[in-house]
Amino acid sequence: MDFKNILNIIYKDCSRIENHGKIANYIPELAKVNPDKFGMFLLTNENEHYEIGDSQEKFSIQSLSKVISLTIATELIGQDLWKRVEVEPSGTPFNSLTELERDKGIPRNPFINAGAIVVADVLLSVLDNPIDDFLTFIRKLADDDQIFYNEKVAKSEKDFGYRNTALVNYMKALDNIENEVDDILNFYYHQCAIDMTCEQLAKTFSIFANSGKKISTNEQVISAKSVKRINAIIQTCGFYDEPGEFAFRGGLPGKRGVGGGIVAVHPKAYVVVIWSPKLNTKGNSNLGIHALEDLTNLSGLSVF
Amino acid sequence: MDFKNILNIIYKDCSRIENHGKIANYIPELAKVNPDKFGMFLLTNENEHYEIGDSQEKFSIQSLSKVISLTIATELIGQDLWKRVEVEPSGTPFNSLTELERDKGIPRNPFINAGAIVVADVLLSVLDNPIDDFLTFIRKLADDDQIFYNEKVAKSEKDFGYRNTALVNYMKALDNIENEVDDILNFYYHQCAIDMTCEQLAKTFSIFANSGKKISTNEQVISAKSVKRINAIIQTCGFYDEPGEFAFRGGLPGKRGVGGGIVAVHPKAYVVVIWSPKLNTKGNSNLGIHALEDLTNLSGLSVF
Amino acid sequence: MDFKNILNIIYKDCSRIENHGKIANYIPELAKVNPDKFGMFLLTNENEHYEIGDSQEKFSIQSLSKVISLTIATELIGQDLWKRVEVEPSGTPFNSLTELERDKGIPRNPFINAGAIVVADVLLSVLDNPIDDFLTFIRKLADDDQIFYNEKVAKSEKDFGYRNTALVNYMKALDNIENEVDDILNFYYHQCAIDMTCEQLAKTFSIFANSGKKISTNEQVISAKSVKRINAIIQTCGFYDEPGEFAFRGGLPGKRGVGGGIVAVHPKAYVVVIWSPKLNTKGNSNLGIHALEDLTNLSGLSVF
Amino acid sequence: MDFKNILNIIYKDCSRIENHGKIANYIPELAKVNPDKFGMFLLTNENEHYEIGDSQEKFSIQSLSKVISLTIATELIGQDLWKRVEVEPSGTPFNSLTELERDKGIPRNPFINAGAIVVADVLLSVLDNPIDDFLTFIRKLADDDQIFYNEKVAKSEKDFGYRNTALVNYMKALDNIENEVDDILNFYYHQCAIDMTCEQLAKTFSIFANSGKKISTNEQVISAKSVKRINAIIQTCGFYDEPGEFAFRGGLPGKRGVGGGIVAVHPKAYVVVIWSPKLNTKGNSNLGIHALEDLTNLSGLSVF
Repeated sequence: MDFKNILNIIYKDCSRIENHGKIANYIPELAKVNPDKFGMFLLTNENEHYEIGDSQEKFSIQSLSKVISLTIATELIGQDLWKRVEVEPSGTPFNSLTELERDKGIPRNPFINAGAIVVADVLLSVLDNPIDDFLTFIRKLADDDQIFYNEKVAKSEKDFGYRNTALVNYMKALDNIENEVDDILNFYYHQCAIDMTCEQLAKTFSIFANSGKKISTNEQVISAKSVKRINAIIQTCGFYDEPGEFAFRGGLPGKRGVGGGIVAVHPKAYVVVIWSPKLNTKGNSNLGIHALEDLTNLSGLSVF
Repeated sequence: MDFKNILNIIYKDCSRIENHGKIANYIPELAKVNPDKFGMFLLTNENEHYEIGDSQEKFSIQSLSKVISLTIATELIGQDLWKRVEVEPSGTPFNSLTELERDKGIPRNPFINAGAIVVADVLLSVLDNPIDDFLTFIRKLADDDQIFYNEKVAKSEKDFGYRNTALVNYMKALDNIENEVDDILNFYYHQCAIDMTCEQLAKTFSIFANSGKKISTNEQVISAKSVKRINAIIQTCGFYDEPGEFAFRGGLPGKRGVGGGIVAVHPKAYVVVIWSPKLNTKGNSNLGIHALEDLTNLSGLSVF
Repeated sequence: MDFKNILNIIYKDCSRIENHGKIANYIPELAKVNPDKFGMFLLTNENEHYEIGDSQEKFSIQSLSKVISLTIATELIGQDLWKRVEVEPSGTPFNSLTELERDKGIPRNPFINAGAIVVADVLLSVLDNPIDDFLTFIRKLADDDQIFYNEKVAKSEKDFGYRNTALVNYMKALDNIENEVDDILNFYYHQCAIDMTCEQLAKTFSIFANSGKKISTNEQVISAKSVKRINAIIQTCGFYDEPGEFAFRGGLPGKRGVGGGIVAVHPKAYVVVIWSPKLNTKGNSNLGIHALEDLTNLSGLSVF
Repeated sequence: MDFKNILNIIYKDCSRIENHGKIANYIPELAKVNPDKFGMFLLTNENEHYEIGDSQEKFSIQSLSKVISLTIATELIGQDLWKRVEVEPSGTPFNSLTELERDKGIPRNPFINAGAIVVADVLLSVLDNPIDDFLTFIRKLADDDQIFYNEKVAKSEKDFGYRNTALVNYMKALDNIENEVDDILNFYYHQCAIDMTCEQLAKTFSIFANSGKKISTNEQVISAKSVKRINAIIQTCGFYDEPGEFAFRGGLPGKRGVGGGIVAVHPKAYVVVIWSPKLNTKGNSNLGIHALEDLTNLSGLSVF
């Protein structure tokens, strides 16, 4: 079956499902989204693309940004990064302090909040203009300069971010933070507060399907070895405390954001982005996971 | 580069490494193994095979048996299994009681000891002659009736198995165990105490590379859907508290045993078994992981 | 106000209270008790006694026995005991495995189950006839040879004691247990399964109020220094995960059992035993704590 | 033996001990203290006092202030306080985040940092001029207006207080903090940064020995009931993760500060303050605990 038909089937299937998920409402700005949005964009390594629904509408990428920041940090500082953050699944919720205490301030992986904050701290130390440079990198990957920070969302995150403030202060007490707390959080919240469409995300993440090369230009953006590593981390840690359930159902390395976005990568084949804002109790897009399960079942394409 | 050359290179590479690992010595029987053994057997879905070193020598499969018991349980009772054991990575050592207490007696996954004990309990309830049936299943997969339980190892495990006795009693207190404690442990220790060669293991595990079919006969032993699921669990949970590090380095779903065996699966391509008894501090075969990393680097074949 | 009047007031007060507690039912034998029983016996260092209600009726002393076994162990092996068990409050439920894992098999104190099991192991190593000797010691303290083990209760504890079996096996795995698991548990369950009246308990525990001397004969049974230490442990650890709440309300060092008995000691003044089988959600006698609070408020006698 | 002789003996005894403790150095200001200082002041309910060594020299009271803030909060808001903080021993270090996460942001007791921060938040909501009022209350208890905040210490605490910032932000995320984070910490650090002599502290804390009345004037400052409660909390929670060890050795309700001060109360008899800056590995004054043990042994006065 071809991807065009598969996307149609998934779209119909997802329309029929009674979706009991809830949109993220921990910050007022995110709670304003239309909960019934559904978009999907699939991009193959042959530069063919397939899309359906609200695939051209922007949404808050939230934790999807953590893959980008990890990518930049990996390229810029390499192995030294792994002294400050581990690559193991976390076993507890994404913002847990207990695990961080047990592990003496070294976060379990770069995709839980504590880990992404360490990565932000790393970037702050090495980039000239961190906030500008970060956006520039994404725009370049997406071949699109119409991608922006949403300042309202960034501010809203900051105003209600007591738990992240706790995490960063705790790590600073344990000597795993170099820069000023406020500067790190400001940068971190901006990363989360980028608005992108499914298409823009698919283009950005396509390097992980295409051995580090941009599909449009064949330019090698990051090394194939880095891609292998980052995909392994996405597989093991991309879904917080349910990576197993997700690998089990989705069959592909994937990352989710509380904005309802999911990006999944079939290495050497394609990247797919799904957006549906209603989340299950663990904070993952209900329909997103369902759509992905459909996709791997219908296409017969799973890394397993 | 073809697999024959790759195995030669790996063999030489591993010979040169100063191996600071230690063999498992928590039971006297396991401590008797020659620590310098090294064997490797790779079997493709085209039924080509490549081997090197001590690939025809038997060793104690230990936790590799957990994949087999899970496979039988999945086939026999299906979805009901997942009410009694989760599929998430554990985040703590393989025999931790803390996590089991937090999760109210439901083990994190079928590959930590507590989870495998639950699976043994399940099999004890549904198989007619559990100990016979289990061995028969393996012999059938391996096309080889010269596979046996090592009674000395089984007894040695039992004599020093206080921690497993603690786990099963604790789960029984929390109503997640049906059968008698002694019967379950006897069955469980027998599963761990099977002696097999790299070749026998490769044949047995080849169903996970070949969509559930035996390579020799093309017989569908388990469904392709089950394979997808079990591979996902192997990927996420096969390496206890370092699944991330292993995915990161090895790039393939893999399972290890304290006997020094590692089985890794490249879905739709091949299965590889490596045996080297010296373990790192987390209980994984030092050279085994090294060899696997070499293999995926040299072959360019990784699921990521 | 004198103790006679105080006991009358407490009795009336407790009769009026609607008691929403539940009797212990984790073993069938304990569930057979009449939940509405209420008895109280107070014995002063001047050998005056006051009693009310069912003070002459026997009940299962359960964890109250832990104070007796600690006393014997302290006398027999002294400081060495504290290498194998700590004297800190536990912060988690009385049968938690998590804390035991964190503390590497050294129980937090001798009154949680793991700690009392270690004490039983100690006694088993040093007493000639542990089960006989233990009962003899209590009979001597109580001046009463009509005190017996309840074999039905002991057996019932054993049949449902999976959690304790888990604890002792876990500690054996960590080298904090010397004797055979079954022997220790048999001894431990017998200790818990003694039936005694409020009066018998008051006489037995009066050494803790009277600087180590029996009130009836003035015989020095244990040293004043041991009494100081054991009272400190009772104060800090006698009420499992609510020692603070109990100290706060009761104002005296006290120990409870799931049979509904509470013993409290006012050092250098008196001992009081209260029995009421209905327990609060933390396993402490509802009316027992209430009665004790009344007692210290009405008498103005609190160690604080 | 009278207290005068006892203090002389303790002083000689403590002089002979080789003290391997270390002074607190987590903030530069505290590290400036002379580590060999030793002072002791004992005040009876009959207004007799005994002192020795550096009893008239000021030191940083640090956590001893937590008893004062708890006293004010208890008087001002009563039972409502206990909705926001528990009264159980903590079982983990005084600044642990793990326990706070498990208990959903409700600190275990008012003497761990998280608990004292909640108390500071309470006072900030009800006092007109919190920083002035707090000092005024202490000056009144001590009959001495020469007691001041040490602004250098307060600032130093703030500059290195990442862990406390983590605690307060985490509790705010869990809705157990009302005021602004910076305001609370500023108040909290000022409380800790008061300099007092052993005599000033003894006078201040004498209300806990004297049923709530000032010894000098017999004025009832807080109710006898509050005293009973606060003494119970001091007994159970005053020594962080070793309350049992302390009760066991010291035999009196006591509170310690990292400045090396210890206050112990013998209800209805006396209060004693000891100052010696070198701390054991758990942060308690080495000689302070030793001196207290001597005192209760030599005087025969222990609550047990």
